[in-house]
Amino acid sequence: MKKRYLLAPGPTPVPEHVLLEMAAPMVHHRTPQFSAIFGEAAEDAKYLFQTKQDVLILASTGTGAMEGSIVNCLSPGDKILAINGGKFGERWGKIGETYGMSVVWHEVEWGTACDPAAIKKILDDDPDIRAVCVQASETSTAAAHPIEALAKLTRDRDDCLLIVDGITGVGVFPLPMDDWGIDVLLTGSQKALCLPPGLALVSLSEKAWKFADQSKCPKFYFDFKKEKKNLANKTSAYTPAVSLVIGLRKVLQDVKEDGLDVVHARHNRLARATRAAAQALGLRLCAPDSPADSCTGFFVPESVDGAKLVKCIRDEFGVTLAGGQDQWKGKILRVAHLGYIDTFDVVVAISAVEMALKKFGHPVELGKGVAAAQEILLEGY
Amino acid sequence: MKKRYLLAPGPTPVPEHVLLEMAAPMVHHRTPQFSAIFGEAAEDAKYLFQTKQDVLILASTGTGAMEGSIVNCLSPGDKILAINGGKFGERWGKIGETYGMSVVWHEVEWGTACDPAAIKKILDDDPDIRAVCVQASETSTAAAHPIEALAKLTRDRDDCLLIVDGITGVGVFPLPMDDWGIDVLLTGSQKALCLPPGLALVSLSEKAWKFADQSKCPKFYFDFKKEKKNLANKTSAYTPAVSLVIGLRKVLQDVKEDGLDVVHARHNRLARATRAAAQALGLRLCAPDSPADSCTGFFVPESVDGAKLVKCIRDEFGVTLAGGQDQWKGKILRVAHLGYIDTFDVVVAISAVEMALKKFGHPVELGKGVAAAQEILLEGY
Repeated sequence: MKKRYLLAPGPTPVPEHVLLEMAAPMVHHRTPQFSAIFGEAAEDAKYLFQTKQDVLILASTGTGAMEGSIVNCLSPGDKILAINGGKFGERWGKIGETYGMSVVWHEVEWGTACDPAAIKKILDDDPDIRAVCVQASETSTAAAHPIEALAKLTRDRDDCLLIVDGITGVGVFPLPMDDWGIDVLLTGSQKALCLPPGLALVSLSEKAWKFADQSKCPKFYFDFKKEKKNLANKTSAYTPAVSLVIGLRKVLQDVKEDGLDVVHARHNRLARATRAAAQALGLRLCAPDSPADSCTGFFVPESVDGAKLVKCIRDEFGVTLAGGQDQWKGKILRVAHLGYIDTFDVVVAISAVEMALKKFGHPVELGKGVAAAQEILLEGY
Repeated sequence: MKKRYLLAPGPTPVPEHVLLEMAAPMVHHRTPQFSAIFGEAAEDAKYLFQTKQDVLILASTGTGAMEGSIVNCLSPGDKILAINGGKFGERWGKIGETYGMSVVWHEVEWGTACDPAAIKKILDDDPDIRAVCVQASETSTAAAHPIEALAKLTRDRDDCLLIVDGITGVGVFPLPMDDWGIDVLLTGSQKALCLPPGLALVSLSEKAWKFADQSKCPKFYFDFKKEKKNLANKTSAYTPAVSLVIGLRKVLQDVKEDGLDVVHARHNRLARATRAAAQALGLRLCAPDSPADSCTGFFVPESVDGAKLVKCIRDEFGVTLAGGQDQWKGKILRVAHLGYIDTFDVVVAISAVEMALKKFGHPVELGKGVAAAQEILLEGY
């Protein structure tokens, strides 16, 4: 009967009514019944992506859509700029190298955003760069990159795409694909879409589809042109992940009903509340100058073992937060605001952190972080 | 309140207790709680595959595992033999061509099995062939290929693999990977495993892993060596499809409890009953000489429009069977025996076919096919 709370940046909690919807009897994927569901989900996904372009629905997790974006838009030998400010930025470069591209690694200090002026200089100096690959929200550091500013650099260059991993960005904060001129935008089901993992969504601008016409990378399962053709018939090239697509349709209906602005505002309020709480507790934020609203990261006090803290909060208190990855392993805590997370989840997360810090002998005034969060959380009411 | 029956060869019905298990609250994938689930599922999958080798669990449908098998075991320029006796055999060749392989197309008449003697001659004549790619059960024609005989041809050749698409074979009829010497065996979740689509399972022999060490194809999402390394820690390289893995563990427990022999025997009995019914009704079997136990295909009478028949059975009677694909579109009906399908599902399918044929003006003695099926179905009791 131990009560559990899932507050890590993905997979995120799935709303109960969506779990039940996905637990309905299986339907065949090549039927008018399912095509209607698939078509509705794909249509509503355009609202989420703020685009008039098709949004492809893939049976894979987000990394598959990242790989798909590279192999569909580019060719071996192409030069790409990988903005590497964390574990996921690094992934862009690794995928590019896997497919024989010439990767220009742009290293960004963990916890900071890239500087658009620096990117502008790189692009100006090297006209061979065919794509800028970046995260909207670098989940490993809880930092956001300035996508709008980057899009201003690429949208007037016919020969350079902006490819954005929006896995913890889409549905969290504004990323109006068409308005800003993002060329490739992708996300995964297990973040703001509050579904189980196993679906990826990706959309390409007209410019990106032109790149796709020229692409020489091999692709079969992640063949976007084939998917686009099938989408016109409200289906996918290969068997879709039926139950997840059923959940997707439901969640997107909910997002539309709430309104994207409201959804973004909720994430922002929860994020600001969590940041305020961390600061009230004297905990240093991971990305103080460019925090993402997807999750908030903060350093644990140096006297405390972060890995043990996460474990205590999870196994003893029943609250699953995330620790750090790679260079920040054992050093940080991350609290998610993604998807089906609301006011009192922040209260739960912060109070769990306070209690754990006290248990670990760190001087902490219980309730101080909670109070700071509450001040901001009240804005929502 | 219309009652519906799903009897097409995938996605197949998901048992109610498995639907509920997958509807439990989401769990984080990097926790001891989920690792235990993932580890158990992977372990029990070895029982299903009848192998001592690792079984990788991928967040994709079966086609992803087919592509993965090619790109992990082979290199551009390699020569492969694609046994093309249907829509899925054709897929092997297309994947090979996508990755720059030299594909030897071995055409097999739809509805028949390949002849091992012919394959032996091809391999003897062309020692450059690095892999024989085949379906255990070619779902589009309802025919089975002679995997044991093919394995006898490849297992003593150090330089040639047998790569088997077991998507509608594994868990249906015997495919003892280690005993027969199958080098790559794969399946998908939405067939005999009676889960929603979205998971693929694949296992490689020691010989296939040696090929993987030499492979020069690019791969990232479907990187089997990376998956194998992660599996040792009871996890996957990228986010696993958590809810489906939870379902997989449950289904595999059920399969182990029933026993693989019993599961195979059930599929065989249902298949034989359905074949007998079709023949009693004077319907010509699609694969009379080498029928697969995964599904039974039969031609609709020439006076009847097969597409309309499928539609009537589905939309009016509520029973989803499958029609034909490609060259057999509108000409055949397929009834599945895969997974969570039992005695009275055959009765439902056959009686629906009888009633529809009568409705379409074809002379049919109602109950005659059902009776023929019942004779065989009774063997199970």
